Amino acid sequence: MAEGPSLDFIFHPKSIAIAGVSAKEGAGFGGGGFVASLQETGFRGPIYLIHPTAPAIRGLKCYRSLRDIPDDVDYVISSVPARHVPELLEDCIAKNVRVLHLFTAGFTETGDVERAKMEQAIVARARESGIRIIGPNCMGLYVPASRLAMMPGQPPEPGPVGMVSQSGMNAGEFVRYAIPRGVRCSKVISFGNGADLKAADFFEYLAEDPETEIIVSYLEGIQDGPRLARVIRETAAKKPLVILKGGRTDAGSRAATSHTASLAGSLLVFDALCKQAGAVRVESLEELTDLAVTFQFVRRLAGPNVVVIGGGGGASVLAADDLAAAGLVLPPLLPETQAALAKVTHEAGTSIRNPIDTTSVWEEEGFEASFRPVAEAPNVHAILYHTSFGAGPMARLGDPRGRMAKQAETLGRIQQATGKPIVVAIRPATNVEGFAQSLDFQELCWRAGLATYPSVARAGLALGHLLRWQRQRGALSVGH
Amino acid sequence: MAEGPSLDFIFHPKSIAIAGVSAKEGAGFGGGGFVASLQETGFRGPIYLIHPTAPAIRGLKCYRSLRDIPDDVDYVISSVPARHVPELLEDCIAKNVRVLHLFTAGFTETGDVERAKMEQAIVARARESGIRIIGPNCMGLYVPASRLAMMPGQPPEPGPVGMVSQSGMNAGEFVRYAIPRGVRCSKVISFGNGADLKAADFFEYLAEDPETEIIVSYLEGIQDGPRLARVIRETAAKKPLVILKGGRTDAGSRAATSHTASLAGSLLVFDALCKQAGAVRVESLEELTDLAVTFQFVRRLAGPNVVVIGGGGGASVLAADDLAAAGLVLPPLLPETQAALAKVTHEAGTSIRNPIDTTSVWEEEGFEASFRPVAEAPNVHAILYHTSFGAGPMARLGDPRGRMAKQAETLGRIQQATGKPIVVAIRPATNVEGFAQSLDFQELCWRAGLATYPSVARAGLALGHLLRWQRQRGALSVGH
Repeated sequence: MAEGPSLDFIFHPKSIAIAGVSAKEGAGFGGGGFVASLQETGFRGPIYLIHPTAPAIRGLKCYRSLRDIPDDVDYVISSVPARHVPELLEDCIAKNVRVLHLFTAGFTETGDVERAKMEQAIVARARESGIRIIGPNCMGLYVPASRLAMMPGQPPEPGPVGMVSQSGMNAGEFVRYAIPRGVRCSKVISFGNGADLKAADFFEYLAEDPETEIIVSYLEGIQDGPRLARVIRETAAKKPLVILKGGRTDAGSRAATSHTASLAGSLLVFDALCKQAGAVRVESLEELTDLAVTFQFVRRLAGPNVVVIGGGGGASVLAADDLAAAGLVLPPLLPETQAALAKVTHEAGTSIRNPIDTTSVWEEEGFEASFRPVAEAPNVHAILYHTSFGAGPMARLGDPRGRMAKQAETLGRIQQATGKPIVVAIRPATNVEGFAQSLDFQELCWRAGLATYPSVARAGLALGHLLRWQRQRGALSVGH
Repeated sequence: MAEGPSLDFIFHPKSIAIAGVSAKEGAGFGGGGFVASLQETGFRGPIYLIHPTAPAIRGLKCYRSLRDIPDDVDYVISSVPARHVPELLEDCIAKNVRVLHLFTAGFTETGDVERAKMEQAIVARARESGIRIIGPNCMGLYVPASRLAMMPGQPPEPGPVGMVSQSGMNAGEFVRYAIPRGVRCSKVISFGNGADLKAADFFEYLAEDPETEIIVSYLEGIQDGPRLARVIRETAAKKPLVILKGGRTDAGSRAATSHTASLAGSLLVFDALCKQAGAVRVESLEELTDLAVTFQFVRRLAGPNVVVIGGGGGASVLAADDLAAAGLVLPPLLPETQAALAKVTHEAGTSIRNPIDTTSVWEEEGFEASFRPVAEAPNVHAILYHTSFGAGPMARLGDPRGRMAKQAETLGRIQQATGKPIVVAIRPATNVEGFAQSLDFQELCWRAGLATYPSVARAGLALGHLLRWQRQRGALSVGH
């Protein structure tokens, strides 16, 4: 069956019907949650609800059955119990529905043979009728351009990152972590058990999708291993591909089987596949987010040489350790760079070696003068700036917002002018005021085109991944 | 020279003089910062300022010289330039001062031979006069019971954790990270270059200090290696000792030399020493904080068996992976435990295996019923509860504060009744409301006696360290 580009239709429904919406107010999870999310994100087409008795829910008219809806419906979300799905599928066939998203769980993942058979029968019946199934046991789609959302709070602006996830929660957590860091998505797909459409189908699609530049994924199981391996190789050859593999331990494997009926497979085999394909394998959602940030904002490093700039001697030592441990190099500064820095940094107890530990980053004039000579130095490939909010000297200075805006603007301008990536590590806030300021500064930074991370260590790990990925890609290209 | 207990006097000054306070308003760092911190924390004795011309600063009378102060002064903080320290030291000798804290930097760490000699001469002169020096190039002391603080925002309540740090910033960051997690300190010492008093002196003191139960440390250099090794072995035999070694890479080593004139030494040798001594070596301030939380709140695990409870299938899979990778075991639940859980958890798409992925933790009645049978099961040694705020189903429920208080109270009560540690992982908030709620929940939890962590992975790493530490201590005891 031809997949790939032909899947485009599932991301652009014209109308949606939702079966299994509770008439009770405040039903946040399940059918009612989908209604709320679609309303919040502003889905442009009609939303039809199916309910046996209620006349209307959340301001939308209810129909007793899918067949009672007078207009065309191309996309159906099912939140009915599993035993009602076969009947709903027949209604979908009668209505010429094209996509059935089964939020409904209770199939193969239960470990019950009868329920596994029911899942297979549903897929077979859908396939022979030309209906594609997303799921079962999943949250479905978040597609900003189509104003589809799977959860509340998902932003309507699109971006370059596509996500393929077997877990709706992990898809939602990825999107949530990505928001304050400026990462925006083209298509996010939660596909659960993958009874019909599988990871390989979505990878193939996103590899060709012009709206997607970077692909991230959370996978639990290996379905049709040889095909998945081939598609991962083909996808990674076209776009950065970052994969978080759930079920990398025996305990995680067992949990994956309970969750999405997944057979996790050997981590060693999967890891070897990623290495060979040039895909990046990460071990947490945080790291997956860090890599999305890195591929969206840093893109490319001309080499491993990083200069660290910030205030605090102890922080500088730990920063140097973290970056070096991640495979980056902290080059000594050239004499002319040190001479330029000496003009603005002169206090005892600070350092203009690399790391640069200087209080001049807390001064209006000193800030740009501390970064520009470093960014212009020929032996520097990137700069890491570390800071924090809510405590320390910055907390006691006036006009924090103005100072932050000036810093972000300056760093963005220097990055633009010199072509050297500047990344920003903001240490965790521990009070509400510091958190609000960190969020503000983070937004100012990403809007200025800067990658932001919650620690130097995480920035280092992500940049180290990027470097190895570039080397691997170079090696692969040479091999061709 | 006898050290150890005799050092007690440095932590209990009766009066403090500060030299080098700026007359300018808003001078946040240096002398003025110490005045502000001491005033904020409520130092009970007199604070005398030394300034050549100003009559008063921050409401405190200024004296032209230390010798002009009419009363006794036992503790002096120096923020004057390095070249003025010898003269200040002579004044200290004339005044019978007992402790000179040199915030002043610009000595050996500059790499300048003359400045190194000046540091040595100052120490020699102080020693022959019976004055102990903290520093130079350091933030000095935070001692809640004596109302001494090195930075603003350090809480006045004491606690069981003592810290020995070569970096004032890292000491401050540790305290800042520790606050929202309920970790409180007995004595925090930033000692910089350690020209006179060194890490070994402070470890010896804290090992005997009845107010200190847990010792954490940030070290950059190895001063008098054989003595430090002996003291680390003796200290770790008496109390949990956790050490973050800065300068574990070549780049970090070079930074440590610039920062505190430290010779970092070989990480392999230091690591072997820690292993042999039963000290825990960690690689970040975050991990240092996690271990302090673990030793203060968890204390001891009866074995490696952990049950994970929370909502979300994907989160459960990753939690299982993270804990198993950290060396913990996720045992299958006993039939009677599963039967008890089945009474409250019945939804499709959830699981009552381990991890327990259940929406009943979002329900008033289901919450206690989900934890109690697990905590009472004989094959369970600890429970990990994971949650988050600001998004997801909890965000849409009413009365979050009441729900949180009930949860924390329930978990604290079950931990108390069963003796099984319950630890709480709160995933990072990404909006201000979620952050404020997370902080609230965290405080409710630690006040109920529960350990809190910002991720399952970090909880797992800390519990894994605790288990290995217990095994090591068992091995060491057996060896005796």
